[in-house]
Amino acid sequence: MTRAWAVGLDMGGTNIRCAAVSAGGDVLLMEHGPSYASRQAAAVAENIAAQLTHLLNTARRRGLGSPRAIGVAVPGPLNVYSGTVMQAPHVAAWRGYPLRRKLEALIGRNVVVENDANAWALGEYWRGAARGRRDVVLLTLGTGVGGGLIVGGKLVHGRSGMAGELGHVTVDPNGPRCDCGANGCLESYASASGLRGLVEQRLRLSPGAPLPAQIVDSEGNFSVRGLSAQARCGDRLALEAFATAGYYLGIAIAAFLDIFNPELVVIGGGVAAALPYMRKTMMTQVRARAFTAIASQAKIVRAALGPRGGVVGAAYAALHPAQRARRADSKVR
Amino acid sequence: MTRAWAVGLDMGGTNIRCAAVSAGGDVLLMEHGPSYASRQAAAVAENIAAQLTHLLNTARRRGLGSPRAIGVAVPGPLNVYSGTVMQAPHVAAWRGYPLRRKLEALIGRNVVVENDANAWALGEYWRGAARGRRDVVLLTLGTGVGGGLIVGGKLVHGRSGMAGELGHVTVDPNGPRCDCGANGCLESYASASGLRGLVEQRLRLSPGAPLPAQIVDSEGNFSVRGLSAQARCGDRLALEAFATAGYYLGIAIAAFLDIFNPELVVIGGGVAAALPYMRKTMMTQVRARAFTAIASQAKIVRAALGPRGGVVGAAYAALHPAQRARRADSKVR
Repeated sequence: MTRAWAVGLDMGGTNIRCAAVSAGGDVLLMEHGPSYASRQAAAVAENIAAQLTHLLNTARRRGLGSPRAIGVAVPGPLNVYSGTVMQAPHVAAWRGYPLRRKLEALIGRNVVVENDANAWALGEYWRGAARGRRDVVLLTLGTGVGGGLIVGGKLVHGRSGMAGELGHVTVDPNGPRCDCGANGCLESYASASGLRGLVEQRLRLSPGAPLPAQIVDSEGNFSVRGLSAQARCGDRLALEAFATAGYYLGIAIAAFLDIFNPELVVIGGGVAAALPYMRKTMMTQVRARAFTAIASQAKIVRAALGPRGGVVGAAYAALHPAQRARRADSKVR
Repeated sequence: MTRAWAVGLDMGGTNIRCAAVSAGGDVLLMEHGPSYASRQAAAVAENIAAQLTHLLNTARRRGLGSPRAIGVAVPGPLNVYSGTVMQAPHVAAWRGYPLRRKLEALIGRNVVVENDANAWALGEYWRGAARGRRDVVLLTLGTGVGGGLIVGGKLVHGRSGMAGELGHVTVDPNGPRCDCGANGCLESYASASGLRGLVEQRLRLSPGAPLPAQIVDSEGNFSVRGLSAQARCGDRLALEAFATAGYYLGIAIAAFLDIFNPELVVIGGGVAAALPYMRKTMMTQVRARAFTAIASQAKIVRAALGPRGGVVGAAYAALHPAQRARRADSKVR
């Protein structure tokens, strides 16, 4: 008899990760591919379907047989019940795109779709930093800022699955313009794009102008890793940018504490590696703004799963449909 | 046979309301009394117990018999499992006060304690504006700002029942000092005390200085009703104060929408009567800041129960212990 397992696929702006995940949460095999996010809507979906098919074939060849379920995590607010992506930050062509239906037609199997940060929250809850916790706030600090909420052991979906957009709470109404169109979102400070903006502002550069060599990668793009290396050397510009990001991150975390009274705040994503340079200003704001009785009950920790969080969580979402069952009594659009 | 009913008591800064509420949510009888909130910790609790005893006696005399359960709603963050009030804005003496234990000793019966805004949210969910809704954000705009959250048909308690402190999310990090000690909380704008501060600021008055006669009540205290009357007459000071409060209320509501993807935002409390003067600036910020796909799914409405919300909700909390059962797997302090 073959082992019970599920597919978990995590689509980012650049890459796709696709894994076979056991019913216990172990990654049995993992494949990677490009996400071609700038292509047309249908082409992006066809590429996901091809990646799924490739993994299904590999799994069959390795004797794993067929999966019990398939979960796909994508960025941006989406209706998890209908499987429609409302808007995806890295896939311009997906606006009200019926992703689930398209994928099901292409591969001939049921597919569960979930927001990528929600999937990561489920992954941390299942096998990561939030194991055994019932009330958890997950923040992903990457190119943008995403969020996933677990309340009483269940993922918070809201009316149609778009809950958890923690990156777009306002932390300063007069702050810089965010990619979402509003001003002073958490994302406009505590993300890679936010940090780039803070650096540009301090150097009085216009957006998109060439940045110092130490903080760009081999392709000339802004690099949080480079900025962290500068901070490690005591560079004032880098330290100030991280201190500002930490200040606003602390303001947002204080709000999430007062709203949710969680046991745990889990912080993941590429920018989370720079937490040591943000922690001081962050904690000052948390202590100044959240109720002491609430803040003293919550730990703020790094995510444990790293890049695996999304695929493990997407598989969990697929394996546990009851946790995300459509409510019979609501008219979900 | 007598009818099944519960006691619901709602303690405010000035008055106590205490009611017999049927298992269907009808108020069978209602009594009022002063809350003596400035007295010593034990005296405040003894007064609540006396009010409960008085209602129990009235109910017995009227042939209602004994209640099935007793629910008590009080302001401020409290541990709903242990029944300890962490800090209550209007009862200075309650700091880590074991209210439930004291009340149970005084009246010789089990008592359920709940945060007053949470109780109101349950009341609106049971018998008010949120009937039949599964995902609801309730805001109470009174002397301060409170909140209650219903997610998937259940009240959000968090680790120990202190979730829902929506009045203390930061809406402007450089804003005026809030009673909680932080700066620029929602409460420092969209509450009676916030509006008083906005008026004082515009009149360049020091806090506590005498206010114009039109906006004070017969005892010389700031009156939101008076400010509303001024706004109705087109008074610029009043219109500006409400416009500013609405602006910050909109910033906070946009965040709650992106966080919860609710079906409904319910606004109650004395300041909610002035919503017509706040709505324009509020809605401009909601539209500018929340994801359109999320905001378009939520209605923003006035609470339906008014002063009865708290007692009805406290009775609901007492009648439905499963909705707030202590989790066996958590170490609640």
